[in-house]
Amino acid sequence: MQNDTIAAIATPQGVGGVGVIRVSGGESFQLVAPLLRRPGKESIPSIPPTHHLTYRVITDPQTQEVLDEVLVAFMRAPHTYTCEDVVEIQGHGGPLILRRILRAVLRQGARLANPGEFTLRSFLNGRLDLAQAEAVMDLIGSQTEAGQRLAMQQLRGKLSEQVQQARTSMLGAIARIEASIDFPEDDVPTPLAEELQPFIIEARQQVDKLLAGSDQGRLYRQGVRTAIIGRPNVGKSSLLNALLRMERAIVTPIAGTTRDTVEEIANLRGVPLHLIDTAGMTPTEDPVERIGVERSRAAAENADIILHVFDGSVPLAEHDWQVLEELRGMGYGKQGARPVIAVLNKSDCEQVITPATLAELWPGAPVVATSTLVETGLEELENTLAELVQAGSVMSNESVLITSARHQEALRRGEGILRPR
Amino acid sequence: MQNDTIAAIATPQGVGGVGVIRVSGGESFQLVAPLLRRPGKESIPSIPPTHHLTYRVITDPQTQEVLDEVLVAFMRAPHTYTCEDVVEIQGHGGPLILRRILRAVLRQGARLANPGEFTLRSFLNGRLDLAQAEAVMDLIGSQTEAGQRLAMQQLRGKLSEQVQQARTSMLGAIARIEASIDFPEDDVPTPLAEELQPFIIEARQQVDKLLAGSDQGRLYRQGVRTAIIGRPNVGKSSLLNALLRMERAIVTPIAGTTRDTVEEIANLRGVPLHLIDTAGMTPTEDPVERIGVERSRAAAENADIILHVFDGSVPLAEHDWQVLEELRGMGYGKQGARPVIAVLNKSDCEQVITPATLAELWPGAPVVATSTLVETGLEELENTLAELVQAGSVMSNESVLITSARHQEALRRGEGILRPR
Repeated sequence: MQNDTIAAIATPQGVGGVGVIRVSGGESFQLVAPLLRRPGKESIPSIPPTHHLTYRVITDPQTQEVLDEVLVAFMRAPHTYTCEDVVEIQGHGGPLILRRILRAVLRQGARLANPGEFTLRSFLNGRLDLAQAEAVMDLIGSQTEAGQRLAMQQLRGKLSEQVQQARTSMLGAIARIEASIDFPEDDVPTPLAEELQPFIIEARQQVDKLLAGSDQGRLYRQGVRTAIIGRPNVGKSSLLNALLRMERAIVTPIAGTTRDTVEEIANLRGVPLHLIDTAGMTPTEDPVERIGVERSRAAAENADIILHVFDGSVPLAEHDWQVLEELRGMGYGKQGARPVIAVLNKSDCEQVITPATLAELWPGAPVVATSTLVETGLEELENTLAELVQAGSVMSNESVLITSARHQEALRRGEGILRPR
Repeated sequence: MQNDTIAAIATPQGVGGVGVIRVSGGESFQLVAPLLRRPGKESIPSIPPTHHLTYRVITDPQTQEVLDEVLVAFMRAPHTYTCEDVVEIQGHGGPLILRRILRAVLRQGARLANPGEFTLRSFLNGRLDLAQAEAVMDLIGSQTEAGQRLAMQQLRGKLSEQVQQARTSMLGAIARIEASIDFPEDDVPTPLAEELQPFIIEARQQVDKLLAGSDQGRLYRQGVRTAIIGRPNVGKSSLLNALLRMERAIVTPIAGTTRDTVEEIANLRGVPLHLIDTAGMTPTEDPVERIGVERSRAAAENADIILHVFDGSVPLAEHDWQVLEELRGMGYGKQGARPVIAVLNKSDCEQVITPATLAELWPGAPVVATSTLVETGLEELENTLAELVQAGSVMSNESVLITSARHQEALRRGEGILRPR
C-alpha cells in the first residue's frame, strides 16, 4: 500500500465557477492545514470536524499572498473516496488559480497524482473491486445514457455480484472435492461427477448469460465508427449535419480532432455513433490535399461501417469509381466483411442514377436514397444503421452488460474451462 | 430579492474526476432531498447537518434509476456563497452525468441559473459589494499571476476599502455643511471654505492615487493586443512561436479562435500579451484567401501594438510596401498613434536590408533585428515591447490597482468634481 500523499486538480480543465483540488494520503491533513487561515485572522486554525465544508482563505506559505477564498473539507479515513485521509479544496474555477493552489500543496510535500491514482487507491484499499474501478472511467467518459447506465450498474457492483454468483457455484463444487481430499478418514466420500455437475452447470449458465450480452455491451460503451466516404460534392458534410440534427440528444465534438477529418458523435438509440466526415479520396499532387486524402484513407480503414455517398443527380464520375476501388481494396463489400451502406444523395433533384445502379456496384449492401435538403430518407438511413449494429434493443434500468474487452475475454476463458469435454 | 431556486453545473465543461452542481434558493433543500438515498437503502434520508459532505446515491425520481454516487452538502443560509440555502452536489466529472443530475434537479422545480447569477445573488444579498462581485469573473479568467493577484485583492474588498476612505473624507465635509443648515439656531457656524478644504484634498488625493495606477491595472487585466503583420514568408509564425517559447509560464490557446488568425497569450512580465498571427494582407482573387486577408486587416485595426515583420535576407518586395501602405492608412506610425515595432527577421542570413532602411520606412519606431532560427534578438524584442506597455513595474502583494474601465471612468468623474475651479 502506498503511503505518500498525492494531490491533483479533480475538476475538468477550463473556466467555471468552482474547481476542486483533491489531496489524499496519511499526511494530507498536516500538509494542507498550514496553508489555511480564517478570513481576517492571522492564526492557523485547528482542523475542522471531519467532512465539514469550511470557509477559509488559502495562502502561499512563502509570500503570505492570499491565493483564493476556498471551501475546504478534511475527511477522515476510512469514509472517503480512497479510504485514506482526504482533503478537498474548492476554489474558484480558473485554471491559473487552481494551478497555483495545487503548486502550494505540492510544495508542502504532496506528490502530483498520476491519472486515475485516486481510483487506484480506492481499489488497493478495498473500497472498489477491479470491475468497479474500471467503471469509473467508463462512467465519466460515457456518451449516451445507455452507456452511462451500464457503467453505473458496474460501479455499483452489479456486475461483480453476477460474477460472484458463478464463483459461489464453483466454490460449492470445490468445497466438496477438497473436503474429500483433506478428510478422507472422516468418512467424507469422494464426490461423484453427478454431484458436482449442478454446480458447474449453474456457473456456466451464469457465464453464458453474461457473455450473451457482451457484444451489445461493448457497443454501448465504445460506439460504432462510421466513415462518410465519397468523392467531393456529393453532400458528405450535409449528410453528417443531417444525421447529427436528427439526434439532438447528445452531440459532442471530440476534442483534439483534427479539422481535416471532422468527427462527431450522434446517439443512435443509445449507441454512440462516431461519424467521421472525410475529405475526398482522390489522388492529388497538392501536398496539403494529400494529407487530407491520407487521413480519409485511414478513417475508411478503421471504420466499422462505411457510408459511401453518391450524387444521384449526375452520372457516375471517374472519382466515384476511384473511391469504390479504394474501398474494395480495403476488403469492404466482401462476404463477412464490415458493412457498407450505399447512400444515393440529392434525391430531391431529378435522378440520373437509380438505386439499382448502386446495388450493382455494392452487391448485397443496403441502398438508401436521401435528400439532406428536404430531409427525406434520413430516418430510413438511421433504421438501416441501427439494424446493422443491432442497436435499440430494449434495456431495463437493471440490465448488466459486459462492456469491456478484458471482461469478455476473461469470461470466454472461464466458459472454455466449464464446457463439457 | 429573488426567491426562486436556481441550479447549474458550477465546474468547467469537460471530463474530470469530480463535477459540482450548485443549487441556491429557499426551496433548494426540499427540491434536492427527494432525489437522494443512502446507498443500499430505499428510504428518503433526513437532511444531514449543515455543511456536512455526505455520501448518497442520486436517483431519477421518475424511473428510480441511480444516476450517480455523490457527495452532497446542504448548507443553511446565511453562511453560504449566495447567503441563501445552498445544496452542493459533487458527482463524477462526466458531462453527461452532470447534465442528467442537473436535469433531475430542474424537473424538481429549480430554474437553470443564468451566467453569473450565483454571484449576482451574493451581491444582492449583501455578501459582496459591486467591486467584489466584478472581481469574481476577473479572478476566474485571470491569465497571469499579477492579474490574479489584483482580482484577489479586489475580491477581498481592498479596492472597496480605499474607495471607502475617499468617501469617509467627503462625508466629513458634508456633515459639517449639513449640520450648519439643519441646526442654524444651535450655534453651528457655517463652515468656512478653509475648514472644508482638508477633507476635499484628502479625498482627491485618494482618488488620484487610485487613478494613477489605473492604466497599469487595466493592462494587467486585459493585456495588450499585439498583431504580427507582414507579407507571407517573412517568418511571422516562427516569431509567434519563439515569443511563446520564451514565456513558458503561461501559454494558453484561446478557445474559439478561428484557425485563420492564430491568437495565443504570452506572459510579458505579468501582462497578458495577446499575440495575433495573421495571414498576409495582400489583395487576392481567391475567395478563401480573401477571408484571411479581411481577418488580418481587422486584427491590425484592433491591435494595440503592431509587429511589422520583414525578411532581412531579401530585398523589399512589392508586398512589403503594400502592407506598409495599409498600416499607414489605418493611422499607424502617426504622432500619438498606436506604436509599431519594425522587426528585421532572419538576421542569421546574409543581410540585404539594414535596420536603417526600416527606420526610414517607420520613422520613430523601434527597429529590432531577430532570428527565430538561432534565437537572437528575441529578448531585445521583449524588452522593447515591455517598455512600450510599461510592463514589469514592481507590484507588491498588497497593491491595489484599478483594473476595470467602469471604475476608471467613475474615479475620473469624481476627480473632476473634486478639482478646484
